[in-house]
Amino acid sequence: MSAERFKVEFDPMGASVEVDAGATLMDAARTAGIGISSTCGGEGTCGRCRLTIADGEMPPPSDADLRFMSQQEIGAGQRLACRSHVVGHTRAHVPKASLVTGQRLQLDGPAGAVTLEAGVRAYEIEATAPNLHDPRSDVDRVAAALETTHGVRRLLADPAVVRQLTPLARRTGWHLTCYVRNRDLVGVESPGRSPAGLAVDLGTTKIAGYLIDLETGEVLASEGVVNPQISYGEDVIARLAYAARNPGGADELASVVRAGIDRLLGTLAETAGVAREQIVDAAIVGNTAMHHLFLGLPTRQLSAAPFVPAASAPMEVRARDLGITMAPDATIHMPPVIGGFVGADTVAMVIGADLDRLEKVAVGVDIGTNTEIVLQRPGLGHLASASCASGPAFEGAHIRDGMRGAAGAIEGVVIDGDRVDIRVIADGAPVGICGSGIVDAVAELYRTGRIDGRGRFQRAARGVVEGDRGLQFQLVSPEASGHGREIAITQNDVNEIQLAKGAIAAGIEILLESTGTPREDVDEVIVAGAFGTYLNLESALAIGLLPRLPRAAYSQVGNAAGTGARATLLSLRDRERARRIARGTRYLELTSNPGFHRRFARSMLFKEPVTKGS
Amino acid sequence: MSAERFKVEFDPMGASVEVDAGATLMDAARTAGIGISSTCGGEGTCGRCRLTIADGEMPPPSDADLRFMSQQEIGAGQRLACRSHVVGHTRAHVPKASLVTGQRLQLDGPAGAVTLEAGVRAYEIEATAPNLHDPRSDVDRVAAALETTHGVRRLLADPAVVRQLTPLARRTGWHLTCYVRNRDLVGVESPGRSPAGLAVDLGTTKIAGYLIDLETGEVLASEGVVNPQISYGEDVIARLAYAARNPGGADELASVVRAGIDRLLGTLAETAGVAREQIVDAAIVGNTAMHHLFLGLPTRQLSAAPFVPAASAPMEVRARDLGITMAPDATIHMPPVIGGFVGADTVAMVIGADLDRLEKVAVGVDIGTNTEIVLQRPGLGHLASASCASGPAFEGAHIRDGMRGAAGAIEGVVIDGDRVDIRVIADGAPVGICGSGIVDAVAELYRTGRIDGRGRFQRAARGVVEGDRGLQFQLVSPEASGHGREIAITQNDVNEIQLAKGAIAAGIEILLESTGTPREDVDEVIVAGAFGTYLNLESALAIGLLPRLPRAAYSQVGNAAGTGARATLLSLRDRERARRIARGTRYLELTSNPGFHRRFARSMLFKEPVTKGS
Repeated sequence: MSAERFKVEFDPMGASVEVDAGATLMDAARTAGIGISSTCGGEGTCGRCRLTIADGEMPPPSDADLRFMSQQEIGAGQRLACRSHVVGHTRAHVPKASLVTGQRLQLDGPAGAVTLEAGVRAYEIEATAPNLHDPRSDVDRVAAALETTHGVRRLLADPAVVRQLTPLARRTGWHLTCYVRNRDLVGVESPGRSPAGLAVDLGTTKIAGYLIDLETGEVLASEGVVNPQISYGEDVIARLAYAARNPGGADELASVVRAGIDRLLGTLAETAGVAREQIVDAAIVGNTAMHHLFLGLPTRQLSAAPFVPAASAPMEVRARDLGITMAPDATIHMPPVIGGFVGADTVAMVIGADLDRLEKVAVGVDIGTNTEIVLQRPGLGHLASASCASGPAFEGAHIRDGMRGAAGAIEGVVIDGDRVDIRVIADGAPVGICGSGIVDAVAELYRTGRIDGRGRFQRAARGVVEGDRGLQFQLVSPEASGHGREIAITQNDVNEIQLAKGAIAAGIEILLESTGTPREDVDEVIVAGAFGTYLNLESALAIGLLPRLPRAAYSQVGNAAGTGARATLLSLRDRERARRIARGTRYLELTSNPGFHRRFARSMLFKEPVTKGS
Repeated sequence: MSAERFKVEFDPMGASVEVDAGATLMDAARTAGIGISSTCGGEGTCGRCRLTIADGEMPPPSDADLRFMSQQEIGAGQRLACRSHVVGHTRAHVPKASLVTGQRLQLDGPAGAVTLEAGVRAYEIEATAPNLHDPRSDVDRVAAALETTHGVRRLLADPAVVRQLTPLARRTGWHLTCYVRNRDLVGVESPGRSPAGLAVDLGTTKIAGYLIDLETGEVLASEGVVNPQISYGEDVIARLAYAARNPGGADELASVVRAGIDRLLGTLAETAGVAREQIVDAAIVGNTAMHHLFLGLPTRQLSAAPFVPAASAPMEVRARDLGITMAPDATIHMPPVIGGFVGADTVAMVIGADLDRLEKVAVGVDIGTNTEIVLQRPGLGHLASASCASGPAFEGAHIRDGMRGAAGAIEGVVIDGDRVDIRVIADGAPVGICGSGIVDAVAELYRTGRIDGRGRFQRAARGVVEGDRGLQFQLVSPEASGHGREIAITQNDVNEIQLAKGAIAAGIEILLESTGTPREDVDEVIVAGAFGTYLNLESALAIGLLPRLPRAAYSQVGNAAGTGARATLLSLRDRERARRIARGTRYLELTSNPGFHRRFARSMLFKEPVTKGS
């Protein structure tokens, strides 16, 4: 008599197999070619092969399930794959954390592989239960097991961790995963739960979060959200003003961004199938204002000369003090800031782009609402940095039909005679234009003579018409758009782009000039940041947003700050490197430079004016 | 023409002098023989000679006042004595902190002088103000000054301290007192403000607090208050039951005791004229239940065999996490506990009584609602400890006319024939009887044959009458009492004392027996604790509360636990010593000892029964 066979489906991979009744879910996964984590070889003792029965016959919990999981988790259908027998048609969800992953995965981004040297390590222990002859405290018996098995000496445990430890140890029979930072017990979990960390690039406009396996370096989930402080002001200046003018304003700004990061962490954890208790470390980089507002540091002195940070050195702050729910004694590492206008995101960009290690003259540019510029020149003895308020035009703000780089945004424009060719994100009907599209459009309008060197629309040029806000050029007719309204570039839009690109170009020029670096000596310009990734370099060079150097001198490296944030999360060595970078970078205050305003005004032009005598 | 002369009075010393108009308050104090602190010699640069103008002509604030004090403090009449000129008749209050005090004062209590080796040190610095050419962060410039002037390297500053530092530095022109623990900046203050610390003996019934100058060891103020948890249960068992049975009960108990300690600190600070910001360290000792409930540690496992603490090692917790307002990054040191029923107060008692260093056989007894007993016997290799639930009878609870040892309490009783002589605290008319009075009364009733060896009132004995609760003996008639009601000892009162003394006597005997220590080998019995201080030893020996040893073997040492708490506050070496004591003390669980209950029953008698064959 042949055994009954049942279908087993695995999500999110969508694999499906048929197995004999009584086979384990682990067997089924192997048959389906899905690599599920296991270090005990299916003995039910490592607890790594968790999955969730989403549909179908629910197998009764095994002894191993009862040992590794809470009643709540079991009630929600969680089971260990190696101990669960297939008793009917089944659909199982495999969380990312239960999938086999390679060791020392290279993080995407420009920096290459990160050295894994996490600040928090996980140790599995089996401590002994107390009795009348051995009435040591709960913490003492865990400390003894950690010392004997893993050489961790003189363990310290915060009351918050003890609150977690005492009931959990009794539930798991004193078989625990301990997360340890130096001598500090950060948290405890059931066995087999690997530690994860959160890396955040905290931008003025956007927050990018990465949830990372601290043992493999693998990105388990990543997600970008809008910085909820945006409703208090689009740029840094507006937020600092809000904090200064409103009683409790700084606390309010701190609360909303902390809550935003906590929500982001929740989303990431859910996506990856990782419990908050497994998240044991974090690194958050942002510009100095974002850094100060997040930490609740005083900001008044950031808004007036000499624009000094209240604190610039690296900090460790308790996640729970900031309302961010992680393991009970988890800390958040805040890499150092360089100065009032050059923050930890710039330090992270330097790390992400390896700028401090280059043996040539290189300029790193991270274009955003604020644009930070860093010059590496061997022999100079330090990195040189500057910052300019380029404004949110490249995020689509202050642009009549502007929008962020999302589905429906025009991201590329070519004008050929009367014909306008556009490229739309996700290919649907266009509903607006994002930063890279605007730069393209302005470059094309200038190239085709529709705007002059001063950025003025030429009334007589083809397609230039009077709109509701002055002269403009239509890119998409109401009929062709996704919302029934035209999409156009207005005179005001062109002026906004001139302000933004003028600030950036002047900043780069003055930084080069003040360090005695001729433009033609620059070997490489590294364009970082999300906008920089999608930017059409030819257009940027055409409108003078970036210095006129051979195209080959340019590289676009993506979110280098995010890569740097991940590096400081994963490697104590990179934390030390960040400290060295921050201390070894000189900041040039552009606005106090006597030539800045003249240079800025000149850089707003599309074509530099002919100088006298030429 | 001779100058006008004005009278200057100084509180709280009550000194009064006449000085010429225009003399400084410092001159006046010197004339009055009052030693006011000053390290700058009256130059207005050290800020140590603060006092408060309580009455009379208010001198205008000097530049030095404006520099060292807030507008609020100036508005409240605070001035520097060396810069304030007498402009009329004046009454000034001199806070204790402004008085000259000797160095290395011996703390009262049994332990002798404490080695001053505080964990937090104060450093005065003059940092440089920022400018466009030196835009270092606020913390960096303070760190640089600390390193240059005092050798403190790689300073760490928590965001909470930075919030304090940034505005204060700008107000004092970057002239600051920095309180530093290892590399951590605990807080900052105006120059001249010496650091203070809080030592607390957290009892089940009473909380004793001491505010101490960390540079001199001087007790600036001390105060005892009732533990506000008392409304949740009189003894440890009742509180643990409350925490176990009520959702949120443990949090509630934690909140009320933390708030109570915070209020106590406020009172101490006000009395001593010390700002909360100057209070930079604390040490709190209590029994294990008080320790756990204060820290919010799990307590369920304390109430059931094998009665283990959740955590026993020394801990540092942030004061602000517990709602106790001190310097922004101040921590509270929690000395270690020994076991479920022998807490940090016992460790502190051992230190306070120097029990661990005695070269003879000694028993330390701290009598309270719980009574802890520690045996030191050279050659044993460890201290031995036990704990017994002696109940609150010695605090006056469960005694019909019982009260705490306050004004109006009968604290001593002698019965001579029909005459009853009583001694009353503060000498007024009596309103009740406190622990030492009850022990005296019971001993006298037994000596005069009014109660028998089993504690039963003898109906025929003189003065023994039927009261509303059975037989009783009147100590004070309604006419002679302060409240118009009689004060008597009832049969139930005698029984309560029997239960209490039986538990203590049995505990001591079993501890001696189980370590193989004959009673006659005991060289010294150290009676610690407030009740032990006032206890009439002859009476205690007469009723068998303490082992029958020569009177000379006994010493009464006062609040040794309080002395030990102050030692762990003031000396890192004593913190290490406390750790050694806790690790080197074995705990004997009395209730699981097979002989305990029989011994307890026998010890309740006033005269041990004649054993067979004798």
